[in-house]
Amino acid sequence: MKDNQDAMNGAESLVHTLLQSGVDTCFSNPGTSEMHFVAALDHIPGMRSVLTLAEGVATGAADGYYRMSGKTACTLLHLGPGLANGLSNLHNAKKAGSGVLNIVGEHASTHIELDAPLTSDIQGIAWPVSHWVRTSTSASAVGADAAEAVQAANTAPGQIATMILPSDTAWNPGGAVHEPLAAPPRPDFDRSVLAAAREALDGDDSLLLLGGAALTPENLETAGRIAAATGCAILSEWSNARLERGAGRVAIGRVPYPIDQALKVLAPYRRIVLVGARAPIGFFAYPGKPAVLTADGARIIGLAGAGDDLAGALAELASGTGADGVAPAHVAAAGVPPRPQQGPLTPDSIAALLGRAIPENAVVVDESITTGRAFFPDTAGAPPHSWLNNCGGSIGYGMPCAIGAAIAAPERKILALIGDGSAMYTVQALWTMAREALDITVVIFANRSYRILRGDLTNVGVGNAGPRAIDMLSLDRPTLDFVQMARSMGVEACQAADCDALEQALAEGIAHPGPYLIEAVL
Amino acid sequence: MKDNQDAMNGAESLVHTLLQSGVDTCFSNPGTSEMHFVAALDHIPGMRSVLTLAEGVATGAADGYYRMSGKTACTLLHLGPGLANGLSNLHNAKKAGSGVLNIVGEHASTHIELDAPLTSDIQGIAWPVSHWVRTSTSASAVGADAAEAVQAANTAPGQIATMILPSDTAWNPGGAVHEPLAAPPRPDFDRSVLAAAREALDGDDSLLLLGGAALTPENLETAGRIAAATGCAILSEWSNARLERGAGRVAIGRVPYPIDQALKVLAPYRRIVLVGARAPIGFFAYPGKPAVLTADGARIIGLAGAGDDLAGALAELASGTGADGVAPAHVAAAGVPPRPQQGPLTPDSIAALLGRAIPENAVVVDESITTGRAFFPDTAGAPPHSWLNNCGGSIGYGMPCAIGAAIAAPERKILALIGDGSAMYTVQALWTMAREALDITVVIFANRSYRILRGDLTNVGVGNAGPRAIDMLSLDRPTLDFVQMARSMGVEACQAADCDALEQALAEGIAHPGPYLIEAVL
Repeated sequence: MKDNQDAMNGAESLVHTLLQSGVDTCFSNPGTSEMHFVAALDHIPGMRSVLTLAEGVATGAADGYYRMSGKTACTLLHLGPGLANGLSNLHNAKKAGSGVLNIVGEHASTHIELDAPLTSDIQGIAWPVSHWVRTSTSASAVGADAAEAVQAANTAPGQIATMILPSDTAWNPGGAVHEPLAAPPRPDFDRSVLAAAREALDGDDSLLLLGGAALTPENLETAGRIAAATGCAILSEWSNARLERGAGRVAIGRVPYPIDQALKVLAPYRRIVLVGARAPIGFFAYPGKPAVLTADGARIIGLAGAGDDLAGALAELASGTGADGVAPAHVAAAGVPPRPQQGPLTPDSIAALLGRAIPENAVVVDESITTGRAFFPDTAGAPPHSWLNNCGGSIGYGMPCAIGAAIAAPERKILALIGDGSAMYTVQALWTMAREALDITVVIFANRSYRILRGDLTNVGVGNAGPRAIDMLSLDRPTLDFVQMARSMGVEACQAADCDALEQALAEGIAHPGPYLIEAVL
Repeated sequence: MKDNQDAMNGAESLVHTLLQSGVDTCFSNPGTSEMHFVAALDHIPGMRSVLTLAEGVATGAADGYYRMSGKTACTLLHLGPGLANGLSNLHNAKKAGSGVLNIVGEHASTHIELDAPLTSDIQGIAWPVSHWVRTSTSASAVGADAAEAVQAANTAPGQIATMILPSDTAWNPGGAVHEPLAAPPRPDFDRSVLAAAREALDGDDSLLLLGGAALTPENLETAGRIAAATGCAILSEWSNARLERGAGRVAIGRVPYPIDQALKVLAPYRRIVLVGARAPIGFFAYPGKPAVLTADGARIIGLAGAGDDLAGALAELASGTGADGVAPAHVAAAGVPPRPQQGPLTPDSIAALLGRAIPENAVVVDESITTGRAFFPDTAGAPPHSWLNNCGGSIGYGMPCAIGAAIAAPERKILALIGDGSAMYTVQALWTMAREALDITVVIFANRSYRILRGDLTNVGVGNAGPRAIDMLSLDRPTLDFVQMARSMGVEACQAADCDALEQALAEGIAHPGPYLIEAVL
C-alpha cells in the first residue's frame, strides 16, 4: 500500500525512509509515545518487527544483527527510561563498531515542559553511547532526520545513531520521505607510516595486531601471507566483534584477558603494527601492575584504525613485504580434539566437546567469561565458523546478540556460550528466541558465581576474602535452574553435569531446529 | 574491628563514613572496579549487602527501601554500564522523591584516558537521573564526598546522589572518615498564598490535592478535617510514593490515569490547593486532547511543594478553615467487599478478592497497570496498610521495590501486584527475594499483552489496529509460565485461573513466611 504523500504523517515518512535506506528490521519494546510508529509499521509492509521483553535485548540484538549482516537495524524504545534500559548493550555495540539506529519516542513537544512522570533528558541519556543524536522538530523534518541517522549508523566501522521522535512529529501530517544518503567510504589507512610498518614486520620479535574488519577470511589470509614472508607473529585483540576462523582459515590467537598472561604473551614483541586494532592496554587497572601491556620500548605503529580501509592496508603491507603469492602461515588444519574422558565438566573438557560439536558455518556468540578462556585451541580446527565477543565488557550481551545474529543469518546455527551470571542480565531474551523460533543453541556455564570477580579480588590485592565478600560474588543460594527458566519462556532445555551428558546435549541442541538451552553444570 | 586510621584506604573510609551517616544497607551488583569496596564490606561489620542479578533490581530496591524506612540505602554498581542498567529505576526513584546513594566504580584515574572497553562517560550517564554527582579525586577526599552524598540523598523529599569512585581512590591509603552531615530541614511552605488557600477551600467545587509526605495517616487526618470543615474534596495524584490507607484512616481517591476519566473527575473544581502535589497534567499527550487536566479557568494555588513542610502547611490550613477539633470526613469504615462469584478472573473480581485478603499492616506495591485501576474502592476498608505506586512510569519497578520494602520493614507482609509485562522487565528480582527469604507475596496479572498500549493505540487515534500492531503488543506467543519461572529462581509459586483458586492462593501466599508467587491468569 502506498501512502498518500499529502496525508502522510511523520511516523509514516519515517518507516518509508528507513525501508528505502535499507533498514528493514526493528527490535522493539514500544510504549504509548511510539504508537504512531507501531501503527505505521502495521500498514506499511517490509519491516520485520521483533518484540523483546526488555530493551537490553533489543539493543543487543541490533548489535548482533549488524555483526552478521553488515546492516543497520533499528530499535524502538520508549522515552528516556526505555533508552536507558538499552544503554549498556549500546555501549557494547559502540565498542564493537556496530551500526545501530535507535528510534526513541518522546512526549509531544508541547508536553515536555509539563514534566510528566516519564519526562527525562533523553538527549543526555543518549549522548554517552551515541555518535549521533537528534530530536526531530516537526513532521516534515522526520524523513530527512531518518536518512541522516541511517547514514551516521552506517559510517564505518558502524556507529550508534539515536533519533528522538516527539509524538506530535509522528502523528502530525506533512511527513516527507527522504532519499537514502550513502555512508562515506572508509578513509584510507595512514600511508605515512606504511614504509615503517613494512620494515617493522621482520622476525619473531615483530607482531601484526589485527582487529575489527581485518578479521575476515580474506584479510586473515593476507595477514597469514605476511606472517609467512616476514616471520612476524599475528594476534587479535581479546574481544572481537566478529572473527572468522576454523579449518582452512588462518588461525589467530588473542591477547589474553588476564593481565599477567597478556604481559607474558606480548613481552617478546619489539615492533607492533596495528591494523584495525588498538594498542594493547589492560581491561582494568590493578595496583602495582602496568596499564600498557606491551614491552617497555616496544615501537607501536598504527597503520589503520577500525574505521579505515583495512583490506587496502593489509594488501599494501603484503606487497611491500614480499608476501604476494606466498602461501599463508598458520592455516588451521581440519581436526577435532580427542574426546575427553567421562567425568565432571571443566573448562578443558568443555573446550574439547565444543571443538568436536561446532557445526559448519556456525556463529559462536561467546560470553563464556572465565569458563571460555581456553576454548580457542580446541576449536581452531572445527569447520569454518564465526566467533563473536563482547567488546564493551558489559555483561548481558550474549543472548541478545545471538537473537540478532540468528535473524541476520537464518541459515546458520547460532551457538551462544554464556556464563550464568551474564545470562541472568538479559534472560528475557529466551522468550524472543522462542517467539521467533530462532535457531540458537544456548549453553549456560553454571559455575554459580561471578567467578571472574573471585580472581579479581586477588588481582586488586585482596588476599583473603572473607565470607561476606565471597557471598557478594556467589550465585549458589538459591541455585538457578536454567532448565525451568528456559521452559518458562517456551525454550526446550536440558541439564548436563558431565562430559557424556554435555556431548549428547550438544548433539541434540544442534540437531534441534529452533532454540534449545543446555545448562552445563561445572 | 577498628581500622588503623593511618593505613585506611579510600574504600574503608567510605564504608565507615556511610555507616556513621546512617547508611547501613547496600543493594549491589559489583564488578572488578568495586572489589576494594567489597573487601572493605567484608571486614567492616554493619553494612547489610544484598546481591542482585541485574542493576535495575538494586536501584528499584533502594527506592522501596527509602519509601518504607525514610532512610537512604546505597547501591553498588559497576562503572557506566552498571549504572546505565539501573537508570530507569533511578528515574522512578527520582520522580518518587526517594533518597538513593549510588556508589559507581570507575577505572583508576590513570586508566581512564586509555579508553579501555568498559570506559564511558559515567557522569554523563548519571546526571539525567541524579540531583548530585561527584567523582572522587583522591583517597583522602572519599570520606568527605560520601558524607556530602548522603546529605544530598537525604535532602527532602529525597534525592538521587551518585558518587563515582575511581578504583585508585578506593585502594590508595589516606582515607579519612568524615562525620555525618545533617540534611537541611524541610523548607517552609509558601505562606504568601496561605490566606488564599484557606479561602479557596470552600464547598464541593474546591479541591485539596495531596501528594508525597502529605499522605501519612496524620496528614491525611488533617486533610479529612479540612474536608469536613470546608466541604472541599480531597484527592491524591495518580501515582504516590507511599499512601497510608485502610480501615480507620481518611480515604482518598486518586486522579485517574486514563485521560478522559481524569478530565471528568477534575471538571467540577474551580479552586484547587496543592499540598505536596503538582498541578494535574496528562501522563501522555494525545492528539486533540488537553495536556492540563483541570477545568478551564480553575484557580490553582501551590501551597507546598513535595520537599516543603507539608505537615505545617496542612496544620495551618486546618486552623484557618475552622477544622481544628472537627471530626475528619471520609474515614474508611472497616469492611470487605462481598466474595465474588466463582468464575474467571476479572479486574473487578480480583479487586474484591484483594480487598478480602490484604492483611493488617501490609505493604502493597502496585504495578498492576491496567488490571489494577479499579483496586481502590474494594480495598479501602481493608485493615490499615501502605500503598506504593510507580511514580516515574518506567515499568519494572514493582518487584525490586518490594525487595527494598521487605528489607526496610521485615515485620510487614509485602504484597506485590505486578502486570506480566512489567514483571518481565526485572524478573531477576525473584532470585534476590529467595536468597534473602523476603516476606513477599507476588501476584502476577497475566493478561498476556501490553494491555495498556492496546488502549493507547486508540487514544492516539489509531482506530483499527491490524495484526502486525497487535502482535507488537502481545505476550502470548509463547505464553510465559510464571510458576516455572519463579521456581527456577527458588521462589514457591502457583497458578490461579479463577476466583476460587485466587482466593486460596492468596491465603496460602500470605500465610507463607517468605516469597511466594501467584500467577493470576486473566
